[in-house]
Amino acid sequence: MMNRSFASDNNAPVAPEILQAILDANAGDALGYGDDDWTRRAVARFKAHFGEDTDVYFAFNGTGANVVALSCAVRPWEAVLAPATAHIQTDECGAFERFTGSKVIPIPTRDGKLRIADLEPYLLGGHGEHFPQPRVVTVSMTTEYGDIYEKDELRELCDYAHGKGLYVHVDGARISNAAAALGATPREITRELGVDILTFGGTKNGLMGGEAVCFFRPELSAHAMPFARKQGMQLASKMRYIAAQFDALLAEDRWLRYASHANAMAQRLLAGVRDIPGVRITRPVRANAIFAIMDRPAIARAQEAFFFFIFDESKPEVRWMTHWATTEADIDAFAAAVRAASA
Amino acid sequence: MMNRSFASDNNAPVAPEILQAILDANAGDALGYGDDDWTRRAVARFKAHFGEDTDVYFAFNGTGANVVALSCAVRPWEAVLAPATAHIQTDECGAFERFTGSKVIPIPTRDGKLRIADLEPYLLGGHGEHFPQPRVVTVSMTTEYGDIYEKDELRELCDYAHGKGLYVHVDGARISNAAAALGATPREITRELGVDILTFGGTKNGLMGGEAVCFFRPELSAHAMPFARKQGMQLASKMRYIAAQFDALLAEDRWLRYASHANAMAQRLLAGVRDIPGVRITRPVRANAIFAIMDRPAIARAQEAFFFFIFDESKPEVRWMTHWATTEADIDAFAAAVRAASA
Amino acid sequence: MMNRSFASDNNAPVAPEILQAILDANAGDALGYGDDDWTRRAVARFKAHFGEDTDVYFAFNGTGANVVALSCAVRPWEAVLAPATAHIQTDECGAFERFTGSKVIPIPTRDGKLRIADLEPYLLGGHGEHFPQPRVVTVSMTTEYGDIYEKDELRELCDYAHGKGLYVHVDGARISNAAAALGATPREITRELGVDILTFGGTKNGLMGGEAVCFFRPELSAHAMPFARKQGMQLASKMRYIAAQFDALLAEDRWLRYASHANAMAQRLLAGVRDIPGVRITRPVRANAIFAIMDRPAIARAQEAFFFFIFDESKPEVRWMTHWATTEADIDAFAAAVRAASA
Amino acid sequence: MMNRSFASDNNAPVAPEILQAILDANAGDALGYGDDDWTRRAVARFKAHFGEDTDVYFAFNGTGANVVALSCAVRPWEAVLAPATAHIQTDECGAFERFTGSKVIPIPTRDGKLRIADLEPYLLGGHGEHFPQPRVVTVSMTTEYGDIYEKDELRELCDYAHGKGLYVHVDGARISNAAAALGATPREITRELGVDILTFGGTKNGLMGGEAVCFFRPELSAHAMPFARKQGMQLASKMRYIAAQFDALLAEDRWLRYASHANAMAQRLLAGVRDIPGVRITRPVRANAIFAIMDRPAIARAQEAFFFFIFDESKPEVRWMTHWATTEADIDAFAAAVRAASA
Repeated sequence: MMNRSFASDNNAPVAPEILQAILDANAGDALGYGDDDWTRRAVARFKAHFGEDTDVYFAFNGTGANVVALSCAVRPWEAVLAPATAHIQTDECGAFERFTGSKVIPIPTRDGKLRIADLEPYLLGGHGEHFPQPRVVTVSMTTEYGDIYEKDELRELCDYAHGKGLYVHVDGARISNAAAALGATPREITRELGVDILTFGGTKNGLMGGEAVCFFRPELSAHAMPFARKQGMQLASKMRYIAAQFDALLAEDRWLRYASHANAMAQRLLAGVRDIPGVRITRPVRANAIFAIMDRPAIARAQEAFFFFIFDESKPEVRWMTHWATTEADIDAFAAAVRAASA
Repeated sequence: MMNRSFASDNNAPVAPEILQAILDANAGDALGYGDDDWTRRAVARFKAHFGEDTDVYFAFNGTGANVVALSCAVRPWEAVLAPATAHIQTDECGAFERFTGSKVIPIPTRDGKLRIADLEPYLLGGHGEHFPQPRVVTVSMTTEYGDIYEKDELRELCDYAHGKGLYVHVDGARISNAAAALGATPREITRELGVDILTFGGTKNGLMGGEAVCFFRPELSAHAMPFARKQGMQLASKMRYIAAQFDALLAEDRWLRYASHANAMAQRLLAGVRDIPGVRITRPVRANAIFAIMDRPAIARAQEAFFFFIFDESKPEVRWMTHWATTEADIDAFAAAVRAASA
Repeated sequence: MMNRSFASDNNAPVAPEILQAILDANAGDALGYGDDDWTRRAVARFKAHFGEDTDVYFAFNGTGANVVALSCAVRPWEAVLAPATAHIQTDECGAFERFTGSKVIPIPTRDGKLRIADLEPYLLGGHGEHFPQPRVVTVSMTTEYGDIYEKDELRELCDYAHGKGLYVHVDGARISNAAAALGATPREITRELGVDILTFGGTKNGLMGGEAVCFFRPELSAHAMPFARKQGMQLASKMRYIAAQFDALLAEDRWLRYASHANAMAQRLLAGVRDIPGVRITRPVRANAIFAIMDRPAIARAQEAFFFFIFDESKPEVRWMTHWATTEADIDAFAAAVRAASA
Repeated sequence: MMNRSFASDNNAPVAPEILQAILDANAGDALGYGDDDWTRRAVARFKAHFGEDTDVYFAFNGTGANVVALSCAVRPWEAVLAPATAHIQTDECGAFERFTGSKVIPIPTRDGKLRIADLEPYLLGGHGEHFPQPRVVTVSMTTEYGDIYEKDELRELCDYAHGKGLYVHVDGARISNAAAALGATPREITRELGVDILTFGGTKNGLMGGEAVCFFRPELSAHAMPFARKQGMQLASKMRYIAAQFDALLAEDRWLRYASHANAMAQRLLAGVRDIPGVRITRPVRANAIFAIMDRPAIARAQEAFFFFIFDESKPEVRWMTHWATTEADIDAFAAAVRAASA
């Protein structure tokens, strides 16, 4: 068994309550494609949390969830505006373009967070049919740099977008980490601020695999999403095994417990490394990611014991991520390894 | 818990050895996207079975596996020839067309099996750039009617296709059932007959979820498939949980045991219903599916106790499927229910 | 200069009045992309003919016009139902699939004309998200076999389609030939029967090049078609040169004069060949195409003097087409050549 | 008739020799889709200029030519690198993404010219299947700001790209203007520097409409382009009318005469406006475009007499273009109007 990985929260195992839910779901036969009790229960959990008119669909993975969700909101000549650092722009191999025929318009930002001033130049209009029409703004919670939109920030962004006739999508691969950090519920940091579509992440928060797309404007999804999901190759025949995981994740605030723990481990790691000479923390540590600049030999030495990635080769800037299963002992050992490597 | 379902083999639970493999894989952290020991072991199992030069990729589901596999072999102006009854034509919501921009050319057949005489009219050429160029023939093992290509039939089809410059893909969602029925290995009924690409099904043979695409011409896949799979939204970050299932399925000939059992249950069901007045068996029963025509009231009565689908509303023709977990008692109860419904 | 061609009406030169209109349009500068007086005049001509609420867009060619027109009416998981012999299915190299991601569902017909009974099996529903949802029926006027839908036939088809929630598109590459044959206006044989979208052909009726898409339900087009046309690479920067041709074609009933002449030439040819031993006319001759079966040596001999195609190699069945510029002398010479070849 | 337009070189009429060539081509029947003498002659002209192994295809417009050309060189998971200001990124409504499923990666540049240092960060690799693989670099000659790559600049860019395994495409909508400015032939400023694919513009240099795609690596095109062009809806049935224009354009160095004249008119305009207080020329004037910043009221006054566009609303920066038919009197009148407007 490898040492604890700090490479990504998707390196984690499945949380025990989630695994138990899978075992419990393995009870005899069940109809396929979501016509089963586990799916009904999991959907009910999302409706109870986000509102009864929420329209919920499970998908296999984050790329699939983001792409099929957005595909419901755009025609092929309509574009998605995203920070240039967004996962859908940098890490999905053009899946959005291939599936929708549309463009992601990557917008440079100061720090991975999209602000109204960043958006404005892209909404001047005036270019008619010669350029894809902006239709959706997508932002990530947490951002790809581990940062968080404050409630006011996201509300203002939503208000602005709506005023321009745009929908707002949140790539919430780590929405639970953001909610835990803000001391709020997922609903309070998305729907209540004006978000129209949410990809609610499971895979990075203790699940074996699965994402949930929540539409807060069912008129976008009801006639489109069942087909988009199937055509997008994201419809599980044995849906109960994804649904059961979400049923368990939303029960007893497990989403919060797992995410809070991961966040706390990141703070512990921050405390353990921030004073190491040669380690410079480069981003606010708000959730479960730490970014730091170190010199290359120190990085190489630290990687001998623990796995993590260089996020930006040009600096070089590393990323360290924690997750539900990271322990205090893991953190302490890793901080010690970084300290030794930097000596 | 619902009664045993005869609607589809994807209504089955996960087989116990497969579930145990998942539990065993839940051991600490593992790198994402397939860079883990479970994936390496599962790939090695496929190579051991199909040949060391086989190039293997895991995907989430059958639609995804078929589409990304075929996408490696066609440019957008090249077409896939398929029986008009093929899953990729009738049950994948146009996923192939949307992902590849190509066409599936549906070819009418007598019974769901594609023969050289069916193909010939589509390979006359002469229409130049005005029509998509045939590039791949795809057939299903077992077919969508539960039938099987004899080894000679498939070899002849492959030879003919290769002579025309076409590749052959097998949608093997139920390849294990076909192999069990023919008393042969999957390799003997695919690669050794000339098949170039195989979608090796897991989901319908005891897995929680997962399909494996096997390329027997790595020149088709090596530079394409990693990207096609990612862009096709079929790359699992927590790959180990799919891979571990295949590792277990290929160990100790479990693929054969599960499939043989399912096939045997279909034969038992056949024996139990074939003499019922009002039930007419309409297709050869070779693997784990039975097709029958009954009158509508009898169908409705039988559906009160057990779930199954009307496959062709116009006749009406029903489909009954068995799987690894179907028991003799299930069969006997179901046959009795059909008998009672038909009385 | 080659002999008159009987291969296709697109082998014809540009009619003199059309050419003059192009010359007249070459007057100084004009704004691009349709913001010019010629385009406004041509659009007005279409509105005058088809109704003021008609929404008109010019495109380069028939494939482009059909595909971008249909793309406005379907989402990617919605399908177009077409006779299996339709140009969009057989002669556009999968352009529709590539541009829209949707499927054309080819429907077998007796003679290339789609009837309600042909459509019905495709509209049973019941397969949910597993199959593309039919959204548009497309038929060709004239058909690919030179035949014509009677007004009652097309009205019934439209009524049926609308009752099923489908739109009706007419590929009118030869709509003028159909109108001439029926002694009706284009409007009377399309919009007044219920047709929703019409590709009004120009290229095959005397133009240098250009097709016009007419939407009779502007709600389908107004927000979509300008973008679809640009993204579909069908937006001419020097639009005036296409528009001027249509302005001239619709003036003084030239569309009718050219098409009537072509039709008359086909009747003259029919009269000249129908009694030739060894020539069997295979289709109704309603417009400007004749289909016939001859033996291969006779075909080869006839092709020595005049160019035409074998339409169906298996029979072999030839197609002979006439156009605005075909003369009586051409016909007589060609009929004599066929007679001599058949002797 | 409107005053001379300075909005775009596509506002120009057709040059008389080109129009005569169209008239001459209107001689009887000709086979469709390029199987005609005019097409053979025009292709021969391109081969004579660029080399006998050049593979040439005509298309309707610039968007179509660029997109189908590039589509031959990329698989859907491969990307095109372009200056962020490139036409294919800013003015083709996502046609490339929709047709190919690939991404254009827009690269910020100082002035619209792509340099090796701009490219380098995009070619670090290391992100595996998570990001589209760069396959082609595309640059425009002239650039969208009217600038020109010096021969050494383009040679270095080609060498660098080839060293990274990339092809180089030139969007030569105004390649003749660039060649005229450099005192070189089109061949000398493309193929001889290493360019692999050229879109040779006609529409903006006196043609009624038509672009030519020249492949200098036929292995890219021979098996792909005929199909890509048809599927891309860019195959003209009456090809002779496009081909005849190119035949005339390449004869007697007309491409050079038209472009040189347009360039000279831009220089005359530059001389006429450069000293106007309130007019600041913002870009090098190398070919047939002038960019300038003026205050908004002055722009509005100047637009009362002559048509031109504000190119960048934020500054505001205007663009003035000249073409083959712009006269010295036009220039002098326009310069006077600008002077008066700025007073």
